[in-house]
Amino acid sequence: MITIYGMRTSGNCYKLQLLLDQLGRDYRWIDVDSAHGETRTTEFLARNPNGKVPLLELEDGRRLAESNAILCHLAEGTALWPDDAWLRAQTLQWLFFEQYSHEPYIAVARFIHLFLAADHPRRAELPALIERGMRTLAVMEQHLAEHEWFVGGRYGIADIALYAYTHCAAEGGFELQAFPHIRRWLESVRQQPGYTPMQYPSGM
Amino acid sequence: MITIYGMRTSGNCYKLQLLLDQLGRDYRWIDVDSAHGETRTTEFLARNPNGKVPLLELEDGRRLAESNAILCHLAEGTALWPDDAWLRAQTLQWLFFEQYSHEPYIAVARFIHLFLAADHPRRAELPALIERGMRTLAVMEQHLAEHEWFVGGRYGIADIALYAYTHCAAEGGFELQAFPHIRRWLESVRQQPGYTPMQYPSGM
Repeated sequence: MITIYGMRTSGNCYKLQLLLDQLGRDYRWIDVDSAHGETRTTEFLARNPNGKVPLLELEDGRRLAESNAILCHLAEGTALWPDDAWLRAQTLQWLFFEQYSHEPYIAVARFIHLFLAADHPRRAELPALIERGMRTLAVMEQHLAEHEWFVGGRYGIADIALYAYTHCAAEGGFELQAFPHIRRWLESVRQQPGYTPMQYPSGM
Repeated sequence: MITIYGMRTSGNCYKLQLLLDQLGRDYRWIDVDSAHGETRTTEFLARNPNGKVPLLELEDGRRLAESNAILCHLAEGTALWPDDAWLRAQTLQWLFFEQYSHEPYIAVARFIHLFLAADHPRRAELPALIERGMRTLAVMEQHLAEHEWFVGGRYGIADIALYAYTHCAAEGGFELQAFPHIRRWLESVRQQPGYTPMQYPSGM
């Protein structure tokens, strides 16, 4: 059985929970709390020298890092990864968009809101993060105004990757009221067979 | 013939020049100066709503953004993109590593050094960028101490993507003296058939 090392409240980790639950695949989940240094221990760095979750470990010990690379690998051969070369290229385009233009603003603003103290100096970063993140949401809104899903007219891993931090963007201070197409798309993702929500520890 | 919209001194754009030159493919290159706002014009935003170069345009008008997605698409069916599923997954892992853990520190420090005035307030970001970028270079050094290339024992697009901003890291203030394996690997990339250097305008 495959193993995922991950933190349940991390959108990057949740992507893999969502994919695997939707594929109905068995997996073992080992909690690693990156918000409290557990990805920087000697033991974890031996597994992933870049010190990040999620991390996929196969039964034979081979390991793969980077949430979106893991998504691609686990989705190969399923309906969530296109057969067509151009649709695969577009999927990768949105996956790189997610890691470069979305996660660094929307996930980071959420991290500051949820995990750092009310008087933490990093709260000064929030206005710039909100401004850049809103620009990214506008790019998604424009695309979803003309397309039901991100790629090829059907649900796939580009939707999973972008859903992960968009559905909880309000926790970072992002107001989705102005983005009706994004809200319609979020609801459509929740209607997909096998959908499971992100898990929050009690008290959060 | 395919068209690349790009800025010659951008590492993200240079990746495509290097790949296409090494594949011996014909292409048209249209200069778009992202450092001076040319990716934010109405005309360019109609081509790429995310306002970034590089951008690939096919002869029939279809377009693809995100440098590493373009690398994957153009390398499909060549020796630079692996046939094996696990090697493809590892290639994607390093491509996402490059965009998330490398480019935001090493390319951004270089941009501040090369393109912003000596008294620009963003120069205050440099110490943190250097510290995070050096940590990324240490991850690469550790990998290259045990592997000739990034994936599968042969040169491929993971090497091209990581070469783009590593070979000019000194322009961002990164000292490569402490990374002998990275320096050996950079030299090996330069020895590959069809290699062409990044182009700098006169005066730079």
